[in-house]
Amino acid sequence: MRLRNRPWAKPLIEENPQYVVTEPQQFKGKWQTRFEKPAPLFVEVGMGKGQFIVEMAARHPENNYIGMELQTVATGMALKKQLERKLTNLQLVRADGSGLTEYFEEDEVDGIYLNFSDPWPKKRQAKRRLTYPTFLKQYQIVMKNSGNIEFKTDNRGLFEYSLTSMNNFGMRFDQVWLDLHQSEDLEDNVMTEYEEKFSKKGPIYKLKAHFQREEENK
Amino acid sequence: MRLRNRPWAKPLIEENPQYVVTEPQQFKGKWQTRFEKPAPLFVEVGMGKGQFIVEMAARHPENNYIGMELQTVATGMALKKQLERKLTNLQLVRADGSGLTEYFEEDEVDGIYLNFSDPWPKKRQAKRRLTYPTFLKQYQIVMKNSGNIEFKTDNRGLFEYSLTSMNNFGMRFDQVWLDLHQSEDLEDNVMTEYEEKFSKKGPIYKLKAHFQREEENK
Ligand SMILES: C[S@@+](CC[C@H](N)C(=O)[O-])C[C@H]1O[C@@H](n2cnc3c(N)ncnc32)[C@H](O)[C@@H]1O
Ligand SMILES: C[S@@+](CC[C@H](N)C(=O)[O-])C[C@H]1O[C@@H](n2cnc3c(N)ncnc32)[C@H](O)[C@@H]1O
Repeated sequence: MRLRNRPWAKPLIEENPQYVVTEPQQFKGKWQTRFEKPAPLFVEVGMGKGQFIVEMAARHPENNYIGMELQTVATGMALKKQLERKLTNLQLVRADGSGLTEYFEEDEVDGIYLNFSDPWPKKRQAKRRLTYPTFLKQYQIVMKNSGNIEFKTDNRGLFEYSLTSMNNFGMRFDQVWLDLHQSEDLEDNVMTEYEEKFSKKGPIYKLKAHFQREEENK
Repeated sequence: MRLRNRPWAKPLIEENPQYVVTEPQQFKGKWQTRFEKPAPLFVEVGMGKGQFIVEMAARHPENNYIGMELQTVATGMALKKQLERKLTNLQLVRADGSGLTEYFEEDEVDGIYLNFSDPWPKKRQAKRRLTYPTFLKQYQIVMKNSGNIEFKTDNRGLFEYSLTSMNNFGMRFDQVWLDLHQSEDLEDNVMTEYEEKFSKKGPIYKLKAHFQREEENK
């Protein structure tokens, strides 16, 4: 997703340092201080325009949420949503998800969301996929072992790849949905911008998985 | 799949002991003696009317094949196909796949095929699914560690279940196809009776997987 330039985005982010972090290294190990109260911390990598993470934060005041996004314009659009809601359990981070271990202490995160991540369809681009082993390794480090990754996409190739990549990494699957919007688990589902668009065109895939735990067979 | 009774099936099987085994325990550890020459041995559990296994045997004279099926009538229909071809690298077995370790010695099998297995959709029926852990355990015992399981189905619920079950068992995925007939790997694909019918109605799912190997990370 490339958004056309919105000249207002960068200044808006700079004017709202209470909601947007642009140097996340500074808060490594101290993210709870950014919220009204300490609570389990969930991170979405690649939030885009932020509909999902804003709605999650609104629905779940018992948790803290971080929406991370590479692009300034998308981050600005997410910030606009937050400025309307002023959710005290939501922080936005303009940064590259490939640096997660620089931004978070070991076990600082309770769960990770990946929604409609860029598919990078060509083989030589595989290492940019958010489910490539180098990313999985970082999720494993920053996320508590009790935590889960929830991954949604409409992209068949990316989902095929991710099932294999996460399996080969030794992750354990909690549940797989091959047509989420035809399933019985839709009540709690919070839609992303991409999901609203693409669920009309074909199946939405979802995987909930975790890193292998002590008690699980090797 | 329940076929209506075909009175000819049972006598036809009895008349052709050279092609159909009904007491597979007798050949445990000795299956290679049933073929013209020793060769890697592949087993389909639940072959139905046998189109897949007959065609595989015809295409791959370098391998030996066994088609196993619970139902007498389906076995009889597969036998009819074999009687037309008289393939020396194909044996049919009328037996229940839940007894695999009684029929095969450890490591006697080189690969296993599961095609359009009965979905048993209700939770309380889960243990009859051919990808339930008790079945996986038997595949692991009778199949060489270098072997693969190839599983195809049109049934979304069964495929969701099987991805999770095989992952949780510690199996490693070689490849996942979420719409096999739209993929580039269709050349080598041999269609089953069910596949011919159901690939017109929706996606065919496929998983190729193996049991964890020494050299793979734990
Ligand atoms: C296809 S969009 C989906 C946006 C949103 N999650 C949704 O479902 O509507 C993918 C987003 O991920 C962002 N992204 C891709 N790679 C990233 C990375 N390494 N770190 C942070 N964001 C990334 C992109 O900039 C883009 O906004
Ligand atoms: C839905 S049919 C599919 C047949 C064929 N594989 C195809 O794709 O056309 C499933 C078949 O598996 C057989 N089957 C089910 N459970 C079995 C078991 N435990 N052992 C052997 N065969 C079994 C059934 O009798 C039925 O013929």
